[in-house]
Amino acid sequence: MQAPTKLTGVDAAKILSRAVGGLLALLSIAMLLPFAVAVANSEKEQWTYLTLAVIGVVVGTALFLQKSGDAKLRARQVFLLTSLCWLSASLFSALPFIFAQPYLSFADAWFESMSAITTTGATVIVGLDNLPRAVLLWRGMLQWLGGIGIIVMAMAILPFLQVGGMRLFQAESSDISGKFMPRSSNMVFAIGRVYILLTLLVMLLYWFGGMHTFDAIVHGMTTIATAGFSNYDASFGHFADSPFLMITGTLFMVAGALPFVLYIRALKGDVGPLYQDSQVRAFLIFLAVAITFITLVHGTRGRDVFDALIHTAFNVVSVVTTTGYASEDYGQWGNWALMVFFYLMFVGGCTGSTAGGMKIFRFQLSQLLLKKQFSQLIHPNLVRVQSYQDRRVNDALLGSMVAFCFMYFLLVAFIALGLSLFDLDFLTAISGAASAVSNVGPGLGEVIGPSGSFASLESGAKLLLVFAMLAGRLEIMTVLILFHRHYWRH
Amino acid sequence: MQAPTKLTGVDAAKILSRAVGGLLALLSIAMLLPFAVAVANSEKEQWTYLTLAVIGVVVGTALFLQKSGDAKLRARQVFLLTSLCWLSASLFSALPFIFAQPYLSFADAWFESMSAITTTGATVIVGLDNLPRAVLLWRGMLQWLGGIGIIVMAMAILPFLQVGGMRLFQAESSDISGKFMPRSSNMVFAIGRVYILLTLLVMLLYWFGGMHTFDAIVHGMTTIATAGFSNYDASFGHFADSPFLMITGTLFMVAGALPFVLYIRALKGDVGPLYQDSQVRAFLIFLAVAITFITLVHGTRGRDVFDALIHTAFNVVSVVTTTGYASEDYGQWGNWALMVFFYLMFVGGCTGSTAGGMKIFRFQLSQLLLKKQFSQLIHPNLVRVQSYQDRRVNDALLGSMVAFCFMYFLLVAFIALGLSLFDLDFLTAISGAASAVSNVGPGLGEVIGPSGSFASLESGAKLLLVFAMLAGRLEIMTVLILFHRHYWRH
Repeated sequence: MQAPTKLTGVDAAKILSRAVGGLLALLSIAMLLPFAVAVANSEKEQWTYLTLAVIGVVVGTALFLQKSGDAKLRARQVFLLTSLCWLSASLFSALPFIFAQPYLSFADAWFESMSAITTTGATVIVGLDNLPRAVLLWRGMLQWLGGIGIIVMAMAILPFLQVGGMRLFQAESSDISGKFMPRSSNMVFAIGRVYILLTLLVMLLYWFGGMHTFDAIVHGMTTIATAGFSNYDASFGHFADSPFLMITGTLFMVAGALPFVLYIRALKGDVGPLYQDSQVRAFLIFLAVAITFITLVHGTRGRDVFDALIHTAFNVVSVVTTTGYASEDYGQWGNWALMVFFYLMFVGGCTGSTAGGMKIFRFQLSQLLLKKQFSQLIHPNLVRVQSYQDRRVNDALLGSMVAFCFMYFLLVAFIALGLSLFDLDFLTAISGAASAVSNVGPGLGEVIGPSGSFASLESGAKLLLVFAMLAGRLEIMTVLILFHRHYWRH
Repeated sequence: MQAPTKLTGVDAAKILSRAVGGLLALLSIAMLLPFAVAVANSEKEQWTYLTLAVIGVVVGTALFLQKSGDAKLRARQVFLLTSLCWLSASLFSALPFIFAQPYLSFADAWFESMSAITTTGATVIVGLDNLPRAVLLWRGMLQWLGGIGIIVMAMAILPFLQVGGMRLFQAESSDISGKFMPRSSNMVFAIGRVYILLTLLVMLLYWFGGMHTFDAIVHGMTTIATAGFSNYDASFGHFADSPFLMITGTLFMVAGALPFVLYIRALKGDVGPLYQDSQVRAFLIFLAVAITFITLVHGTRGRDVFDALIHTAFNVVSVVTTTGYASEDYGQWGNWALMVFFYLMFVGGCTGSTAGGMKIFRFQLSQLLLKKQFSQLIHPNLVRVQSYQDRRVNDALLGSMVAFCFMYFLLVAFIALGLSLFDLDFLTAISGAASAVSNVGPGLGEVIGPSGSFASLESGAKLLLVFAMLAGRLEIMTVLILFHRHYWRH
């Protein structure tokens, strides 16, 4: 291993500039697709998309061409880099929402784009059914790119930052001395291939199940990204008459919430981990229990069981995988459903997937911690070594997991308090905060629930949620550490 | 130290019987006071109180006279003993509510008595203003006895059980080998003297401030126990016209939420700790910040500042100390107030006081934990020793504190889910659960808020809350461990 090169502030700024520039150029090139769709449909705003794309490519390339040498960033600089990349991507990708239909205000456009790239799926747009295809495609593409972006980040960057217990998922061979070194680009390309494969598969099944080609493309992208934007105000409810589409959607939301490394191993013939992995197993068991419980409650309250099962499975999976589609307004199922779905918002999928939330492995680690405490209360002198997925779970790892959980609840609490100061009611404020931090999408209640939208919120409340979505997507600590007074002290 | 005596099941049962019997006899003797009041006021149910008292004394004495030898209980047996003592006390003290006015049903009576002895202060009785004095006195006395009971338990028993980080407060000289050994009875008597002194002081000030003698006696007892039963449906709002009474109430609720050991040291001339102790300091600073913030929000919404300050201070202190008085319906202050008071329910007072909740020292320990994590993210190779009140905070202690917090939130979540299955609305269910586990008293919203009561809830929901109040009062783990499958395996 080579000795760490001393990194100056200028070097760091150049690396930052290269990263942000590359990202902008990539997004601008992607913008050519909605441009093409606008041309094909003779939409009047086609030139807006082209103009923005050209400006983006020029600025992005200029930033990217900074020479940065061989220096590598330290962990603490990667925190800043990560946040700035997502921040600038969200700002740039908001531009089409401002300068083309639906001509949103700045706060609205930023909310929509942040909701897109963080794969949250909350929307401020009412009247999706009548929007031009270019913008619908752009929304879908942003979610899809955000999805692959987060998988790569969760695998390549976050374990090195020791954030929230993610050290667990660091590859054996990697450098843990605090220097930043991304996983081999081979791994990134392999994940990209799996992601594209799964996307094409779900698009094909949606199309086969009766969706229009354009709907199949957009919903395919927002399903596998567990993101949840739809082309319709009724969300996936537009397709709720087709059990085939409902079941396909349910299965591929689950697929998007599994660890993508396992797919790579499965494609190499090693299928076992896909159902033997302890995180996957816990995730699937949790879903089965939640769906059974809710279907049973439905049953005792007089709903047809098959109908209840289809809708329960779809909406539970949608919320737990943090997708955010709704097949109907589950808030109307009863007071008990509001409570259940509020809890489900926190769960999240597996790490290394497109899902947000607290993630299953943290619940497994918490369970280990509680088990140990109860054992110690009963047998005070017992010492036990605990392990998770064949790795020893030490106190440092549990400490970072616990800190993550505390900060998660604290952040939800602060955002909810902020929203309540904008005079939102209790349920709207607390569910909106939880939904944004977990990157689910809709909240609960009349205003922002599955059949509502975030349109009516004040701009300040929207900006608060923009922050919540970003922090939630980047595992909280990555963003919050930038506000720590010691961070900026060299 | 003598070698531990082998304890048989029969010995343990005898010790248990002695403890429960002694408690029953004590409560029965206490019941002679409401009997005396009933006689003095020629209430028709005087003989009910006397009959119950006589039965209690006879049964209690019979149980107490078991010979149990010298054997001492192990920690795991103390868990059971503690829970059974509080359980039997709550059941016995519920009898007057059933057989005398207000002639409650079993579930209602148990709710009222559990709410009383856990110093919660939630009531199912509507029409307090017209009840006989005997029952009002009995309610007040139960809270007062519950208050001294919990202080003694928190000092003498809980630290030995290693529950929720309370090991921190174990005296230096004590036995930590897992054997149970109560603190010297001297300490218990000293605390009793302080408790009586403070009670007489607040009664005197209430009487001086214009309360009728009987009101001064009952409200004095329920103030110092941070318990919150009142003789009026309007709660402390009945006296809200008197700033003197409001301020006296506020100050003595704070007094009840401070660690009682510090009073003993203060009486011996060592007054410093009462304001230098880091827990006390954090508690007072927290109160000051919360009161200032809420008064300011009030100010921006057009309320007179002095009036806002008096009512804010009273109600904030009431909820944070888990007393549960209300001077007016703070739920009506706005959506922001619902959110703020919901959070305040979790806080609690200092350990070793009559207050419930999560308690200030756990927030201080959490802060230490978060501080450490943030430092490590910024300086990965830094190792720091942390301490609290001159004691080293090790990972085992933090682990037990964290497990406590997790179980706290889990318990609130389960109780809230249960309440929502009884079709209570979201705010009622979640605030009712939090209020019960924290032993605050009223919840939030129209039904169980400061101007409502728990009367309209179904019996099942009430029994759920009875469990929540008991578990919350006994630091959660003490009760939940009895449900662990390993607990009953010998």
